[in-house]
Amino acid sequence: MVITGKTALFGLIGHPIEHVGSPALINAYMAERGRDGVLIPIHVTPSDLEKVVDGLRCLRNLRGFLVTIPHKQTIVPLLDRLTEAAELSGAVNVVRRDVDGNLVGDQLDGEGFATALRKSGISLTGARIYMAGAGGVAAGIGFALARQGARAITIFNRTHSRADELTQRLRGAFPQCDVRTGDSNPRGHDIVVNATSLGLTVNDPYPMNVNGLNAAMTVADVIINPRETAFLRAAAVRGCRIQYGFRMVEEQLPLMMQAMDPVS
Amino acid sequence: MVITGKTALFGLIGHPIEHVGSPALINAYMAERGRDGVLIPIHVTPSDLEKVVDGLRCLRNLRGFLVTIPHKQTIVPLLDRLTEAAELSGAVNVVRRDVDGNLVGDQLDGEGFATALRKSGISLTGARIYMAGAGGVAAGIGFALARQGARAITIFNRTHSRADELTQRLRGAFPQCDVRTGDSNPRGHDIVVNATSLGLTVNDPYPMNVNGLNAAMTVADVIINPRETAFLRAAAVRGCRIQYGFRMVEEQLPLMMQAMDPVS
Repeated sequence: MVITGKTALFGLIGHPIEHVGSPALINAYMAERGRDGVLIPIHVTPSDLEKVVDGLRCLRNLRGFLVTIPHKQTIVPLLDRLTEAAELSGAVNVVRRDVDGNLVGDQLDGEGFATALRKSGISLTGARIYMAGAGGVAAGIGFALARQGARAITIFNRTHSRADELTQRLRGAFPQCDVRTGDSNPRGHDIVVNATSLGLTVNDPYPMNVNGLNAAMTVADVIINPRETAFLRAAAVRGCRIQYGFRMVEEQLPLMMQAMDPVS
Repeated sequence: MVITGKTALFGLIGHPIEHVGSPALINAYMAERGRDGVLIPIHVTPSDLEKVVDGLRCLRNLRGFLVTIPHKQTIVPLLDRLTEAAELSGAVNVVRRDVDGNLVGDQLDGEGFATALRKSGISLTGARIYMAGAGGVAAGIGFALARQGARAITIFNRTHSRADELTQRLRGAFPQCDVRTGDSNPRGHDIVVNATSLGLTVNDPYPMNVNGLNAAMTVADVIINPRETAFLRAAAVRGCRIQYGFRMVEEQLPLMMQAMDPVS
């Protein structure tokens, strides 16, 4: 990679920044495709976010930037436009800078998740989805799966009001999909998703009643680290097909590049 | 070069940006030395300069940035501190970001120029300097040569008041150096410098009376493009040793890295 004055600029804002993996992945992705671009890590603390976003808006050779913890929600009011997925999830993980300086936020967790399922040969059309969680990641996944033709989505969340709220939003956006809240048992569904943060820590309880899992199901997690959660192990033991959390991230790389750099 | 979350960030701000050569040079320089850093071009128009500088100040992993046309003078009031060389020249071509976010402007034209002369084996201690020009570049060069022990500096400028002004500033800073204004004839000096912009255009007049040049002199130009000015050709014809303008830039690269990244 040789950086010249013509090289297109991409960023990744986060705090902390040292651990991020996407700069290496995305730079390799661009290099493979002959795209003259570079993605750099940008370390921004929460108190500086507004000033930095105002500055990034003015960089004429910046095509866009990825957004990671802790800025995914707090950046929303600083942007000029949101895609439907970002609007619905209330969070952004990629921002495109239009040539007029407008910043457009998108949220690709759901698209990445759905793409990973499709690439494993799992049909989403007509699928019955069970999802634990009702936060930003869950909203993005619910939105993407409904858009891909899921027949039903059941949402289980420990805080019932949040499950109710996401249910209402999904129903409003996809009247043809049977969206409802459910209990902790995932029985009677085709695809079962953990979209909570349970599993990040070793002693976390399961996100749902794993006795409701069976070998006909595909079971997916959004937890990236550890790679294999206790929940996914419990699903594998029961004969389920499983999808690791990193697959949601992996499939987002090309989508993120498209979102920031539609010409590439 | 693999960019990770730990890679140190360096920039170059300018408008236009497409033609700049230093990103490739400085990235190669860092790679050769095993420094995990990357320098990126940042395209900033004059009207956006303040917002961008405010944003750059907040980037925790930014070590500093180079400054090129048209921001060298206009950035001065936006910075927190200036080095003596930047103060004297009223211009900045490199900015260090301290860990507390303070931005410190430096101007290395003069140091680069003096280093190039020294590396050619030309002694500056006791040297008698003749310099055409009294602008920012001339001020930086005068300052650096006086600091390196020049015995005398004669300044010739078409606008006499500017020559007077620079003469006073150099005298104040270096009382032991014989600084005075002169006429267009460089006779009686050891090192003769064109620090004006004359020579950028083919039909420019010589910056001084070239009949005053002789074979005992070293003659240097600050013009980079064309590489060999009519003035340098006239000096070569008279047997003078010559120094091209690009040498001033070339010798600044390591100095710029030191200025931004003292740990490297």
